[in-house]
Amino acid sequence: MSIRYISQKVAQQIDEELMSASGAFSLDQLMELAGLSCAQALAKSFPVKTHRRVIVCCGPGNQGGDGLVAARHLHMFRYQPTVYLPKPGSKDIYQRLLTQVENLKIPVLKNEDEFQKSLTEQDVILDAIFGFSFKPPLRAPFHTILKLIGSSNVPIFSVDIPSGWDVEKGKQPLRTQPDEDGNSETVDTFNPEALISLTAPKEGVKEFKGRHWLGGRFVPDELARKFELNLPEYNDTDQVVELPSGRTD
Amino acid sequence: MSIRYISQKVAQQIDEELMSASGAFSLDQLMELAGLSCAQALAKSFPVKTHRRVIVCCGPGNQGGDGLVAARHLHMFRYQPTVYLPKPGSKDIYQRLLTQVENLKIPVLKNEDEFQKSLTEQDVILDAIFGFSFKPPLRAPFHTILKLIGSSNVPIFSVDIPSGWDVEKGKQPLRTQPDEDGNSETVDTFNPEALISLTAPKEGVKEFKGRHWLGGRFVPDELARKFELNLPEYNDTDQVVELPSGRTD
Repeated sequence: MSIRYISQKVAQQIDEELMSASGAFSLDQLMELAGLSCAQALAKSFPVKTHRRVIVCCGPGNQGGDGLVAARHLHMFRYQPTVYLPKPGSKDIYQRLLTQVENLKIPVLKNEDEFQKSLTEQDVILDAIFGFSFKPPLRAPFHTILKLIGSSNVPIFSVDIPSGWDVEKGKQPLRTQPDEDGNSETVDTFNPEALISLTAPKEGVKEFKGRHWLGGRFVPDELARKFELNLPEYNDTDQVVELPSGRTD
Repeated sequence: MSIRYISQKVAQQIDEELMSASGAFSLDQLMELAGLSCAQALAKSFPVKTHRRVIVCCGPGNQGGDGLVAARHLHMFRYQPTVYLPKPGSKDIYQRLLTQVENLKIPVLKNEDEFQKSLTEQDVILDAIFGFSFKPPLRAPFHTILKLIGSSNVPIFSVDIPSGWDVEKGKQPLRTQPDEDGNSETVDTFNPEALISLTAPKEGVKEFKGRHWLGGRFVPDELARKFELNLPEYNDTDQVVELPSGRTD
């Protein structure tokens, strides 16, 4: 039986069950394990010897939190991370994770110009902007940011779903939110070189052609059975496992 | 510069700094990483092929919490863990970690007879009873439990400090708390085959002769410098690193 690609709704249900009273996981725990998986999968795709400089782009939600955790572990793995926060999250946990990053003297960029300049000095982009809760249209300031990433020629490693892709339909023309005059535009979304799916891959990455990792070696067997996830076996004590990808090369 | 073996007081200071407002770590995060390190180091010392059955003995404090996290990860690593809780902890986090263990159908033993019987069917003992906060004398029911472990002939993997050892002076004759008539006895403490020190090794394990691991790849550089820990380099994305041990074989 091959692995199940899940819908946005199922992804939300699994998340809720894990953190319900009966699942008993805290967001702190799940985010720590998710972020560690992201850092480990990035290290397997882009070794530190050749890709030391990583810019970690974090959205304002939980996926941004995963990104902050990943940045911290990447620092421990001897990468040289920089964090870009176009719109910092307001949750307490987000602020704590940001403090942990700052304590390691990891540079944190907050404006677009700094980001654009920094992109020219990076070996890989960790895209933790939008996760499985993303719904179009694309809101400011993210359309400029996705364009900058897409045109940077720096290889991209995405978390869960490449930012801007439809969680279920995959890579699609993406409309921006209409401005005051009702004008909107279509943004070309980017193609990451590699991807880590957390817990289970989403329907939108079924045709993804790059290296594809799975993280989240914490899903209880019963939950995996209930949602018929057909998860693959992980090796040894690894927190990530590579999935067969749709690539044809 | 060789690694620093720290006192009980310094261990407590480091813990407090990590979880202070400026350190910003939550107990959930630190326990998850600590428990994962324990499970990984146990797997490196006692491979699942030869040591599938593990009994995880958890004390009532934070080290017991690390043990509960380790039991969960060991299950994910395809070990067959059993948890023994002579005195379950009362903190909310402890209860949540216990629920996570129960959700995986890991057997949880709560009485001494069950434990004694179970010991005859185990390949390795994970000793997470007392941590760096331990102070003698030894209180009931732990003196019977330490004796059962010591006389079991099952190899022991200890966390931080072998349970019953003095955190600073190491293996010593250990007095039990005097009973109503003022009688106490001396308990022989056991010699584990392997050990994982968390954050930094404690003074009491300086002469430890078995395999010795270090976990806690989250200590910020500045904190490590402040306490002159002289931590060794970890490899790749590993969460544990082996230390030179005092063994002479």
